[in-house]
Amino acid sequence: MKDVARAAGVSPMTVSRVVSGAPGVTPETAARVGQAVRKLGYQRNDNARSLRQKNLGTSTIGLVVDDLANPFYALMARSVEDEAHRRGHVVLVGSTNDEPQREREVIAAFTARQVDGLILVPTSGSHGFLKRQMAGGTQVVCVDRPARGLAVDTVTVDNRAAAGRAVTHLLGHGHTRIAYLGDRYDIWTQAERHAGYRDALAAHGIPEDPALVRHELRSQPQARAALAALRTLPDPPTAVFTSNDVITLGVLDALGDPAPLGLVGFDDLPLAERLTPPLTVVSQDPVALGGTAANLLFSRIAGDRSAPRSVVLLTRFVIRGSGEHRTAAGPARG
Amino acid sequence: MKDVARAAGVSPMTVSRVVSGAPGVTPETAARVGQAVRKLGYQRNDNARSLRQKNLGTSTIGLVVDDLANPFYALMARSVEDEAHRRGHVVLVGSTNDEPQREREVIAAFTARQVDGLILVPTSGSHGFLKRQMAGGTQVVCVDRPARGLAVDTVTVDNRAAAGRAVTHLLGHGHTRIAYLGDRYDIWTQAERHAGYRDALAAHGIPEDPALVRHELRSQPQARAALAALRTLPDPPTAVFTSNDVITLGVLDALGDPAPLGLVGFDDLPLAERLTPPLTVVSQDPVALGGTAANLLFSRIAGDRSAPRSVVLLTRFVIRGSGEHRTAAGPARG
Repeated sequence: MKDVARAAGVSPMTVSRVVSGAPGVTPETAARVGQAVRKLGYQRNDNARSLRQKNLGTSTIGLVVDDLANPFYALMARSVEDEAHRRGHVVLVGSTNDEPQREREVIAAFTARQVDGLILVPTSGSHGFLKRQMAGGTQVVCVDRPARGLAVDTVTVDNRAAAGRAVTHLLGHGHTRIAYLGDRYDIWTQAERHAGYRDALAAHGIPEDPALVRHELRSQPQARAALAALRTLPDPPTAVFTSNDVITLGVLDALGDPAPLGLVGFDDLPLAERLTPPLTVVSQDPVALGGTAANLLFSRIAGDRSAPRSVVLLTRFVIRGSGEHRTAAGPARG
Repeated sequence: MKDVARAAGVSPMTVSRVVSGAPGVTPETAARVGQAVRKLGYQRNDNARSLRQKNLGTSTIGLVVDDLANPFYALMARSVEDEAHRRGHVVLVGSTNDEPQREREVIAAFTARQVDGLILVPTSGSHGFLKRQMAGGTQVVCVDRPARGLAVDTVTVDNRAAAGRAVTHLLGHGHTRIAYLGDRYDIWTQAERHAGYRDALAAHGIPEDPALVRHELRSQPQARAALAALRTLPDPPTAVFTSNDVITLGVLDALGDPAPLGLVGFDDLPLAERLTPPLTVVSQDPVALGGTAANLLFSRIAGDRSAPRSVVLLTRFVIRGSGEHRTAAGPARG
């Protein structure tokens, strides 16, 4: 603290106010303190890194995902591991199950074990607590979702536009009763995809029917049950947009007879092209997401202190058949 | 070293000879030294553990798998994480890509970061190097495969019997030209499954035809190419046994026209029951494997020093259609 105050030419009290985010500090002073913190923190971190490499052998980075059992995150993890391995780093991987408390525990365990950086799929909690780790020299990159209250490099896909395109595709095939089945709404990607669903309906002048919208589907059985319930409505949906792979799998379980619905899913699945009908999907590339995040992190670890970047990777819309499918009872093509 | 010598009533030189595995030490002396090492090592480890919990926060265990991108290991990892989380531990996960060198790096990085124990899917390399970590108090449990040269708790499935049953099933449906498509033969599970394939053929008096056997298939494209090549043989197979999920996916890519072959795969797949025909598989439960291994590890961490256990979990044979399928050109039912 004293070193920082001296380097910035301010009092230790001022440094304390800046670091704790207290009001009444001019932007110029805050910037001067920030520069000093970064400069000294960086030196300290450099020293710490050479010391730790001596003590701990191989350098590590940490990867914190929602759920390793989800193939999307498993592929992302492997991609990060391959990038790290090429650079002589080992990756520590952990899951949060989207629980902010578990996220904090995993991150605390990783930083106590002196990772050089973290790649984080943030939970819906707030992430201000990471500022302390970052001030201590741990680099952070977010992937799949941005963190709240934290300005760091972030790699996402075009969730909203891609979901809008998927629903527009169903509308173009004559569907007007299109259900939305989604995971927890407080997950950023889910809110974005739901916004895309609404955009598409609005562009076609169709009001959103809340009876056709289900959030909070966390598992395959929950998604299956949700679709089964929707199909008992007096005016049931003729098509479904599913907002992640787990929900798509659950909906596939509940299709079959009577005549299937139109279906477009967010996320591709192994064997999707071998189903009857083959599955139309929004395909995002977890390997590219993981690789891009790893590259950003390693450039930060190497000393890149430029302004945080937001990288948006484009999804692909893969038309295979299920989104072009209409029931016998479905509406005529619009 | 001196403490051990004193406790064992021998000279420091003798301790050194025992620890380094030098010849000319009587078994009785080696046992006495071993007891002293374990006793003192255990105390030291207890002290170290309370110290590390103070410094590092949450306790950790390490999980080292072949490939996180393989859904089988991803599900296993999540299962280990859930068991660990219930006990207040965080899991560090890493992949070896089945390379002994990468395995050593990952294990070294984990032990340097003071994991209380390791759950290991061992590569085909030797694992004597782990004895040093174990003498230092790190508990080790192997899962999926046994480690060579290391007597520790091990959780596997009935690979050989299950593969034998799968191939017997194909034989029972009239197939006599049955191909075996496998991963690297030096992976223990692959050698076991190939042995089961041979057992079944031998029990039916059918000699193994080397032209129908392919090892070393590490990826989906390699498996696809291998099957395509087999189908150009003058006397092609009428059925295929695939020895893991990745190979099954590759073979499914190469099926289609002309008329498909009989197929039984080792490992179940999401959507397997929705294929045409639905996929017949040997299903092993990665969640049970991971959970059992975690339970064994935590009982070791809690102080259980009983003799190493070998736990074999039974697979399920799931008959869905693809293994009962015969080509028009296939042999009559035997």
